[in-house]
Amino acid sequence: MGGVALICCATSLGFEPLPAQQQWSGVPAVEMADVTLLHTAHEPDILVRAVTRGLSDASSFAFLPDGDILVTEKEGRLRVIRDGVLDPAPLGGIPPVRHGAYSGLTEVVLHPDFARNRLIYLTYATGGEAPRIALARARYEGGELSDFEVVFETAGRPIGASGSRLLFAPDGSLFMTVGGAFNLGGSGGRAQDGRDHAGKILRLTDEGGPAPGNPFVGNPEYLPEVYSLGHRNPMGLAIHPETGELWAAEHAPQGGDEVNVVLPGRNYGWPIVSYGREYRGPRVTERWHQEGFETPTVVWLPSVAPSGIMFYTGDRFPGWTGNLFAGSLRVGRILRTGHIERVILNDEGEEVGREAILTELRQRIRDVKQGPDGLIYALTDEDEGSGVLLRIEPVGP
Amino acid sequence: MGGVALICCATSLGFEPLPAQQQWSGVPAVEMADVTLLHTAHEPDILVRAVTRGLSDASSFAFLPDGDILVTEKEGRLRVIRDGVLDPAPLGGIPPVRHGAYSGLTEVVLHPDFARNRLIYLTYATGGEAPRIALARARYEGGELSDFEVVFETAGRPIGASGSRLLFAPDGSLFMTVGGAFNLGGSGGRAQDGRDHAGKILRLTDEGGPAPGNPFVGNPEYLPEVYSLGHRNPMGLAIHPETGELWAAEHAPQGGDEVNVVLPGRNYGWPIVSYGREYRGPRVTERWHQEGFETPTVVWLPSVAPSGIMFYTGDRFPGWTGNLFAGSLRVGRILRTGHIERVILNDEGEEVGREAILTELRQRIRDVKQGPDGLIYALTDEDEGSGVLLRIEPVGP
Repeated sequence: MGGVALICCATSLGFEPLPAQQQWSGVPAVEMADVTLLHTAHEPDILVRAVTRGLSDASSFAFLPDGDILVTEKEGRLRVIRDGVLDPAPLGGIPPVRHGAYSGLTEVVLHPDFARNRLIYLTYATGGEAPRIALARARYEGGELSDFEVVFETAGRPIGASGSRLLFAPDGSLFMTVGGAFNLGGSGGRAQDGRDHAGKILRLTDEGGPAPGNPFVGNPEYLPEVYSLGHRNPMGLAIHPETGELWAAEHAPQGGDEVNVVLPGRNYGWPIVSYGREYRGPRVTERWHQEGFETPTVVWLPSVAPSGIMFYTGDRFPGWTGNLFAGSLRVGRILRTGHIERVILNDEGEEVGREAILTELRQRIRDVKQGPDGLIYALTDEDEGSGVLLRIEPVGP
Repeated sequence: MGGVALICCATSLGFEPLPAQQQWSGVPAVEMADVTLLHTAHEPDILVRAVTRGLSDASSFAFLPDGDILVTEKEGRLRVIRDGVLDPAPLGGIPPVRHGAYSGLTEVVLHPDFARNRLIYLTYATGGEAPRIALARARYEGGELSDFEVVFETAGRPIGASGSRLLFAPDGSLFMTVGGAFNLGGSGGRAQDGRDHAGKILRLTDEGGPAPGNPFVGNPEYLPEVYSLGHRNPMGLAIHPETGELWAAEHAPQGGDEVNVVLPGRNYGWPIVSYGREYRGPRVTERWHQEGFETPTVVWLPSVAPSGIMFYTGDRFPGWTGNLFAGSLRVGRILRTGHIERVILNDEGEEVGREAILTELRQRIRDVKQGPDGLIYALTDEDEGSGVLLRIEPVGP
């Protein structure tokens, strides 16, 4: 009892630029230590290790079979981490990208048959007066990129501020998220337009065409790549390890971020059904339920700005088996409040609890993935070289 | 850069007992320092001072005109703090109460004309085989309690696990919350039964009778004290400083805690419309919107277990003027995650942002009130003498 505590000592005040309506003062950043000991509810002691520093606006990462890690930086750089060391030279062969607060070179994944064909897939924003999202593939071999090829681009009206995630499904098809349906009274309605790629999750072949069995093939009111609609800004994709279902996380404006179990041909409601408010205060809609629109599996109020998601299937954190993890960029509009959201599910995939972890570190977590070693890796989205790849480890034997 | 950080060092593992279905492991408690420096988004530096220690299961507090503070402890003790020092002897004259995880001696408020009549009002759980909530008043003068008198008791079916809050409105009427409508398939439906006090907000005279102008007076389907219905477990009351409206916070089960603007005769929907899940996973209801039921002003997903609420109207925290503050007992079912929720409102009373503050302290915050000095006081609900009255102070001149 007694004494004086100094918690969360400020070291710098480097706030990320945000659109004017989001210009909120924030709490000071915490400088990442090399190793931090934290306690959580079901894994009492964890270490968070800064594996690799020096990243800028990092967005996604992929584990290679040889232990190297590929990382995208939104400005358009594809980086390589070898034995924890960031190669100072980005890989050559990436075309210039259109870089904004939300967009740029956002995603990298390996082809399921990478060990044989060495193919990686990337998404990025491109185009001048007509911005769009491109899906490209390239060969990554001997530490070099070759045969870069655009295999799909969003069609129709321009798509500006949008990232894009990729995920190969067990059947070999490729899910691709497209946002860009942000604004009420503006782009928001595009999420409901089947002829517009904005606000959709697409299902493609590894050649970039519509995947066989897509729900709207042959329906003239929909583009053939569309798998689901009514998304605002989907930023995370994962396959449920037991059911094989696609789960997707997306950002709402102020409150109402969602994780949905994404089924073919279903409509997830944006902007007709939403659970939050416009930034200036009014509700997006009074109708929190409407027939014909799916109810999300997980909702966050206030927003946590969920980005990459994963299910934990390893054996290093027995208390976390089967849990859903989501990187959080911030809570509400308060900067430096990013963390990782842990969602505990029962055998039916229904939520039975949540915990925010790594809150003490005050990092924007852009992506979170299970490593080949069964540990959990997280990528911070901080600028000017202060981004870090983190590894979460259990304490003890 | 670099170094090793040890954050949130465990000092003890004294978890509060909860019902079996809520028996979750938690993060370790943090021992309260005498003074803690914290940073927040809009008041960059605040001090949190442990003004008074030694409280057990404290529930509410009231500022007396002479500077003393009355505090209720749920086991049935009314305590006095003088110059920050807790009188070791509770006040005499309080009858035995029925004490449980949620119930006991929960509330103390002053009559608006206390300076003249010296009347205080208390709520507590009472009754043996037929538990109910009682409203009593007594005279507090010369450091002693006298003329203790029960002026109202809940009628009809027994009400077991429920606290109760009180608030005198500007017109002199007395709002009283009654919970006890927790369980789906069990007590929950009582919130919709106008002849049952459970799950209601009541409006009374200072004599304990139905207040004039109550919305259902003369309607045989409602008890005359009922002001609003469809509440699950309302634990916080405040009057909006500009509009004079009643705002009330209530607990949902797993996700869906609410703050409502409470209007006479309105139905707030529990258990027909709710935004969360049963603890075991299934949704409370698929219908997140239904005609005839009010949509809450603030919703928390996951739950923060909001307790006492207040609007800040002082001049010591200019960045917090007009904000709504809610004590939080925990996030989800993770123990030791209590804090204070700050909700930022625009001139129309619509939310434009939220921030969780005092998270680093890991205290269950049962009540939060603005002091006569314009500072913010918070009461922690910890057991066996480890409860603390906190004072939040700005740093600087």
